[in-house]
Amino acid sequence: MSHEQIQSCIEECLRCVQACNHCFDACLQEEHVAMMRECIRLDRECADLCAFAAQAMSLNSSYAKELCRLCADVCEACGNECKKHEHDHCQRCAEACFICAMACRAVAA
Amino acid sequence: MSHEQIQSCIEECLRCVQACNHCFDACLQEEHVAMMRECIRLDRECADLCAFAAQAMSLNSSYAKELCRLCADVCEACGNECKKHEHDHCQRCAEACFICAMACRAVAA
Amino acid sequence: MSHEQIQSCIEECLRCVQACNHCFDACLQEEHVAMMRECIRLDRECADLCAFAAQAMSLNSSYAKELCRLCADVCEACGNECKKHEHDHCQRCAEACFICAMACRAVAA
Amino acid sequence: MSHEQIQSCIEECLRCVQACNHCFDACLQEEHVAMMRECIRLDRECADLCAFAAQAMSLNSSYAKELCRLCADVCEACGNECKKHEHDHCQRCAEACFICAMACRAVAA
Repeated sequence: MSHEQIQSCIEECLRCVQACNHCFDACLQEEHVAMMRECIRLDRECADLCAFAAQAMSLNSSYAKELCRLCADVCEACGNECKKHEHDHCQRCAEACFICAMACRAVAA
Repeated sequence: MSHEQIQSCIEECLRCVQACNHCFDACLQEEHVAMMRECIRLDRECADLCAFAAQAMSLNSSYAKELCRLCADVCEACGNECKKHEHDHCQRCAEACFICAMACRAVAA
Repeated sequence: MSHEQIQSCIEECLRCVQACNHCFDACLQEEHVAMMRECIRLDRECADLCAFAAQAMSLNSSYAKELCRLCADVCEACGNECKKHEHDHCQRCAEACFICAMACRAVAA
Repeated sequence: MSHEQIQSCIEECLRCVQACNHCFDACLQEEHVAMMRECIRLDRECADLCAFAAQAMSLNSSYAKELCRLCADVCEACGNECKKHEHDHCQRCAEACFICAMACRAVAA
């Protein structure tokens, strides 16, 4: 696995953290918040795991690959939930999640 | 500041993390989730800051006192919000927050 | 998996965080710090992953089991390194790591 | 405080996390590791606090400003330690720390 691949994955993870955190904050302000329950929950889980995986990669941890595999699963779950909702913040979050999932799969491979 | 005071504060922070995380999870499942928006937001902020402060104390960090001061503020804000709601998880979370705030004030003093 | 099993695993993870953070701090103050390199590195990785797994469990996350499996691996690696060193903080850390690894395996099963 | 100022601060914090984590990893591999004790300790504290502050900003937290004030202090302490050492990773880390400290001061103001 190349240094560039890891650096790119760190950057996608960090973009995904920001998209998920913004989506979490915005979902809590939506009028129909009851529809956003699962989005809120997954935004948090995804942001936290992406942030953790980015730290592990930048620390050159032996467990970075396994964290990236798990991170890809959470990103896909979060992206699948987000893309069901029409809000801009959800659509942008879904996009960030799917890009991050691909970058994590490449590192985990 | 005594070792016992710090150890006690670490333990209250970790109890508060668990109470806030449980309250977050339970609030998202409440029928009237729209009333719980602020509780959900503060549960997350409080859990994350208590966890961070506990790590700083167990690492003997020079910044532990300042983190505890901030942590006490967040615990009080979260406790004040939680105590408005009748749910058991909110009442128990409020109690954990106020106890943690006192322990953090003692360390920050 | 029972609620008691999860609660017990959360508690062992949090004990392990504290033991690893104390060992990290103490290793950095040892005279022969060059011998402690791997211990310092693993103490940090183990503390961070145990703290993360405890948060996931208290949030009732769908990914808690997979995090516990990975956490058990890191705890065993850290425990095996720590037990090589005679320092009290290393011996106590190794013990906390092995107990935590068992609790994590039970949750991951 | 403008959205651009916050976005720029998030990005500097995340760059600083990576510089500190790389410096931590590289310091532990240096021949004269005993000289790097304080650098290793501060690299960890600084990386963790920058990561935490970035999360708080992207969550639009009420406590982001206070975290940024504390983060600026830790970045300056870490930068001052790193700049004492000739290693490339320390010099680059010092630079990232000072830039991040300035961005944090602007947000905290």
